[in-house]
Amino acid sequence: MDFRSDNVTGAHPKIIEAIGRANAGQVGSYGADPWSERVEARLGEIFERPVQVFPVLTGSAANVVALSSFVPPWGAIYCHPEAHINVDECGAPELFTGGAKLVCVPGEHGKITPAGVEGKIHGEGFVHSVQPAAISITQASECGTLYTPDEVAALAACARAHKMALHMDGARFANALAALGCTPAEITWKAGVDVLSFGATKNGCLAAEAVVLFRPEKAEEMAFRRKRGGHLLSKMRLVSAQLEAYLANDLWLDNARHANAMAARLAEGLAAEGCQPIHPVQANELFVRIPKARAERLQAAGFKFYDWEALGKDAWRLVTAFDTRAADVEAFLKALRESAAA
Amino acid sequence: MDFRSDNVTGAHPKIIEAIGRANAGQVGSYGADPWSERVEARLGEIFERPVQVFPVLTGSAANVVALSSFVPPWGAIYCHPEAHINVDECGAPELFTGGAKLVCVPGEHGKITPAGVEGKIHGEGFVHSVQPAAISITQASECGTLYTPDEVAALAACARAHKMALHMDGARFANALAALGCTPAEITWKAGVDVLSFGATKNGCLAAEAVVLFRPEKAEEMAFRRKRGGHLLSKMRLVSAQLEAYLANDLWLDNARHANAMAARLAEGLAAEGCQPIHPVQANELFVRIPKARAERLQAAGFKFYDWEALGKDAWRLVTAFDTRAADVEAFLKALRESAAA
Amino acid sequence: MDFRSDNVTGAHPKIIEAIGRANAGQVGSYGADPWSERVEARLGEIFERPVQVFPVLTGSAANVVALSSFVPPWGAIYCHPEAHINVDECGAPELFTGGAKLVCVPGEHGKITPAGVEGKIHGEGFVHSVQPAAISITQASECGTLYTPDEVAALAACARAHKMALHMDGARFANALAALGCTPAEITWKAGVDVLSFGATKNGCLAAEAVVLFRPEKAEEMAFRRKRGGHLLSKMRLVSAQLEAYLANDLWLDNARHANAMAARLAEGLAAEGCQPIHPVQANELFVRIPKARAERLQAAGFKFYDWEALGKDAWRLVTAFDTRAADVEAFLKALRESAAA
Amino acid sequence: MDFRSDNVTGAHPKIIEAIGRANAGQVGSYGADPWSERVEARLGEIFERPVQVFPVLTGSAANVVALSSFVPPWGAIYCHPEAHINVDECGAPELFTGGAKLVCVPGEHGKITPAGVEGKIHGEGFVHSVQPAAISITQASECGTLYTPDEVAALAACARAHKMALHMDGARFANALAALGCTPAEITWKAGVDVLSFGATKNGCLAAEAVVLFRPEKAEEMAFRRKRGGHLLSKMRLVSAQLEAYLANDLWLDNARHANAMAARLAEGLAAEGCQPIHPVQANELFVRIPKARAERLQAAGFKFYDWEALGKDAWRLVTAFDTRAADVEAFLKALRESAAA
Repeated sequence: MDFRSDNVTGAHPKIIEAIGRANAGQVGSYGADPWSERVEARLGEIFERPVQVFPVLTGSAANVVALSSFVPPWGAIYCHPEAHINVDECGAPELFTGGAKLVCVPGEHGKITPAGVEGKIHGEGFVHSVQPAAISITQASECGTLYTPDEVAALAACARAHKMALHMDGARFANALAALGCTPAEITWKAGVDVLSFGATKNGCLAAEAVVLFRPEKAEEMAFRRKRGGHLLSKMRLVSAQLEAYLANDLWLDNARHANAMAARLAEGLAAEGCQPIHPVQANELFVRIPKARAERLQAAGFKFYDWEALGKDAWRLVTAFDTRAADVEAFLKALRESAAA
Repeated sequence: MDFRSDNVTGAHPKIIEAIGRANAGQVGSYGADPWSERVEARLGEIFERPVQVFPVLTGSAANVVALSSFVPPWGAIYCHPEAHINVDECGAPELFTGGAKLVCVPGEHGKITPAGVEGKIHGEGFVHSVQPAAISITQASECGTLYTPDEVAALAACARAHKMALHMDGARFANALAALGCTPAEITWKAGVDVLSFGATKNGCLAAEAVVLFRPEKAEEMAFRRKRGGHLLSKMRLVSAQLEAYLANDLWLDNARHANAMAARLAEGLAAEGCQPIHPVQANELFVRIPKARAERLQAAGFKFYDWEALGKDAWRLVTAFDTRAADVEAFLKALRESAAA
Repeated sequence: MDFRSDNVTGAHPKIIEAIGRANAGQVGSYGADPWSERVEARLGEIFERPVQVFPVLTGSAANVVALSSFVPPWGAIYCHPEAHINVDECGAPELFTGGAKLVCVPGEHGKITPAGVEGKIHGEGFVHSVQPAAISITQASECGTLYTPDEVAALAACARAHKMALHMDGARFANALAALGCTPAEITWKAGVDVLSFGATKNGCLAAEAVVLFRPEKAEEMAFRRKRGGHLLSKMRLVSAQLEAYLANDLWLDNARHANAMAARLAEGLAAEGCQPIHPVQANELFVRIPKARAERLQAAGFKFYDWEALGKDAWRLVTAFDTRAADVEAFLKALRESAAA
Repeated sequence: MDFRSDNVTGAHPKIIEAIGRANAGQVGSYGADPWSERVEARLGEIFERPVQVFPVLTGSAANVVALSSFVPPWGAIYCHPEAHINVDECGAPELFTGGAKLVCVPGEHGKITPAGVEGKIHGEGFVHSVQPAAISITQASECGTLYTPDEVAALAACARAHKMALHMDGARFANALAALGCTPAEITWKAGVDVLSFGATKNGCLAAEAVVLFRPEKAEEMAFRRKRGGHLLSKMRLVSAQLEAYLANDLWLDNARHANAMAARLAEGLAAEGCQPIHPVQANELFVRIPKARAERLQAAGFKFYDWEALGKDAWRLVTAFDTRAADVEAFLKALRESAAA
């Protein structure tokens, strides 16, 4: 009954089992172990091309290792004002890039457009101005919405036109992929993505993220940046074993499909009660208006979810996860219906 | 039969069990969970005073979060040339401090002295010079040796005299403590340590370190620095559960005692064969001269350990761990004895 | 006939004479010279209180030395989107602060308000968010407008309420002061300003700026930051002699009054021709609409001034300076009148 | 009678005249002026090849703009322990490089050798170690000694072998050149120098330095780094006019020859009195042993020079400059002779 976030969950049992299994024996440290090798190979299959993989422990780590390898200290990173890198990482991108500037590009429902980016580019080649260096998009976005492959490709074209890289923050990549119905390749490098923060923590791992790099010429730099950030684990098996289990037998996609389905059911039930979504519900996050009195009754009944003041009066956020129980969703909706009568 | 490092090991079974147990249910993220609270309380008991605890995932992360909270960008950090922060973190301290300078203080057997530090302090108060800001010592040192409480206190007095902080890199803190036979308090804050990198990974966890802070006025800054470094885990239970189990029922000390005993047995057996230690063997690392031909025979027989060229001809390093089997140690010594005959 | 900027000018003859006079003899370096001492004393008189003065050579240097001494790496600096620190310094504030974030606060005519700042503060005390650290205002603003002492005081109150510092970028401080008719103290520390970038280059020097500090407790840090930025001149007399001459006999105010008067005359003449100001003309910068055809005729006639596209169609900027000749202004206005007929 | 440093002097009268002449008229700012263009062309003639020139105001600025354009944040810069960048810039290289590490390479008389550098290179290609990125040498060295073209070439070969750049800190480049008797090209790019900090302040300017770049592919980056450091002057004519006059009619070499001759005369006279040089006197700095009693008598008589404790008992430094009067040198030597009798 906890819809606060997909990070209040533990891990899927298969992830825990994998950690236990990976515990046996002595293996090379810092990634020179069989799990890490297999994860890189497996992600190569999934993305239908060789990739360089840099497992890390947090989404912020993945984002900043990725961005700092493409953005000089005098670079500009164009992102949505709500982007995690802009509002939820306490300046980590600025630290790791040596002081690059995040330039906010407003856009509906958490998404940015090429026109929006173009409108914010100033002083290209002018020594007084920070220089275009990267576009960063979040997939699924912080508003729970999705970029289609065509939208990604359009942003990639914009990036190329200004010699920028395109970064995708995929903290909820699986949720996006499950909803889009395209291949991992189609929504990333085939559409022009240079580097992906591949998230797994929110979707069933305990702590497992990876930078997936589609530009091999950046791999050497990235290795030093990860280490220098304190993000290279000695017992790398801890994270690689999680990733291996996560990617095995479509666990990652099954988890994501379940979370998305639970969100869709919530959205449907909320709408039936007149509670309209503020953003389209396309993955596993809902931003919805619920009259304050009703919402508080739900909270009093033990359902946990956040007030989302930034979106105005009566705005709330609910997040579903791989382990959200259908019964809890139904219980929530039942309580919602009853809250009207109260 | 792998003596390469104490990070080639997995975790103690109790640690794995703890991760599994901690997996159940939904809890607050980013440290607002019961395991994290209990770990801080438990460390308070262990250190006999309130402490602020900042769990992180790597030793480098602990070191740089700790140091950067005490050292301004124009500060100097005095440390041994062999210090992990100086040679094994790819410049992480420089990144997190905004460019502070590590000033190398030579010293026998991996240890520095107040006189050594004093000899390296130049230009105090002089705007052209970086300014004394911290002394960082490693306990047990990178040479496997120990600082006594008196030695720590002397360094603390030197630090105070120059308005510096005293940091202890305790990647092998348990090994040191087990060998010293003093209390955790005596070897840290009672001797003048301001902040400790409390390591657990090498001694039986999979990935669990913590900054233990004895200067509460730095806690707020440290929280921002940890987050900004990408080192604040969302599912903090992963690391806190490890730490809780590590500290329960003296597992941490039992593990360390075992590793130390295995090292002592190795040292004894090596000496009996004329292989002299290069540094005193006081914790769980051995630096020893073994004739190259004999060492290579051991390696051919499946024993793994590193050539340690920096110490000259015939120098090798062996490291024992919580899970080093006595049988493997005896097998090694037997093979050593036989290697002479070969 | 060059209205492009107040930095296309040379220096006032008295400044050049002062450099020549200061050239004689051997004196202490790095500011241990009589000119530097006298400048600090003189600024103390002007501001009616002891101040710490840090001469530097560029406005960017003054801004970043000032800001970095008040803003931690995880701090937020609230400023207008057009602020020089935000758009004209290629990320210098981010470099010197170690990656702080400039948060843009929109506002009419280049000025920000307490309400505007409040609207941009998020996540105070929340470890995921950068923390309020400074408000930076430009006086005169980048739009050629002024903050009154009351407006400054209101921003200072807002700063205090969030434990922030208040920085004033005074690249055109003399122009502002001359126009406001208040004392230097009234528009700075008496209104709550903590630190001022005191500009002199644009108003008659060749290269002379100074950080004027009203918080003595920051002086030590600031000295290290200036040095570390490469901004401490060995032959400091070069800049201090300029500043001394600049402040002597009201040269600075006379220069500023002249520039302001020339701007006012231009504005009057432009308005008479139907060319309306886009921002109120309060100091020595004009942003004005002139039909493109007319403006191009003026440029063809040898008058230099910039197209200012950011303000839309037919927008142009003209800047007057201490050495703008009244005859040139009248020639410009005459040509303007004739341009209509053409 | 002031032998403390070559920065206690003013400027040569021709430099002051040049500043005055350059003051007339309105010109493009930020280097778009005729003086700046002519200086770049003139340095191209002097170095017998096209060069990119980045005038700045301090030697530290030149050094850090130069180094940061060649050294990544995880890079190592090999330099002598006495190097200005290591001990006199308060960590400026660390700030501008984003935290690179200066690795000290001891060497006699302030000079480093390829063998010395090789001995300090560890962990090349190893992710835990900072990576070789640059060698920085000072010409003339901080000990007043010189590198021959062959010595520079040998260091360049070492640099190339490890994919490093070779930087020359030429704060006293003219003094070195005048003494070596080779061409500017021979001692720089022909010997393998990639970038030169070309000093002029100490040798007759008031504040004028320039990065002279022999790797055009780094020019774009360098321009952003200079600006971002706050080191791009708006009224660039101030520094470019100084440089132009400095380079005209061999003023720079005449100044340097004079300073060197004064130093040689001092050394000769000192030796005649039994005061032996600690380092060979090859340019305009002397490090010499003078019995303390005699030195103090000289100081009491009004001669200024620094005690140089770092070199042990009775060690003193004297520096001559472009404006050192022969009469003062003779007066010093006369007083020295008399000091023995006292």
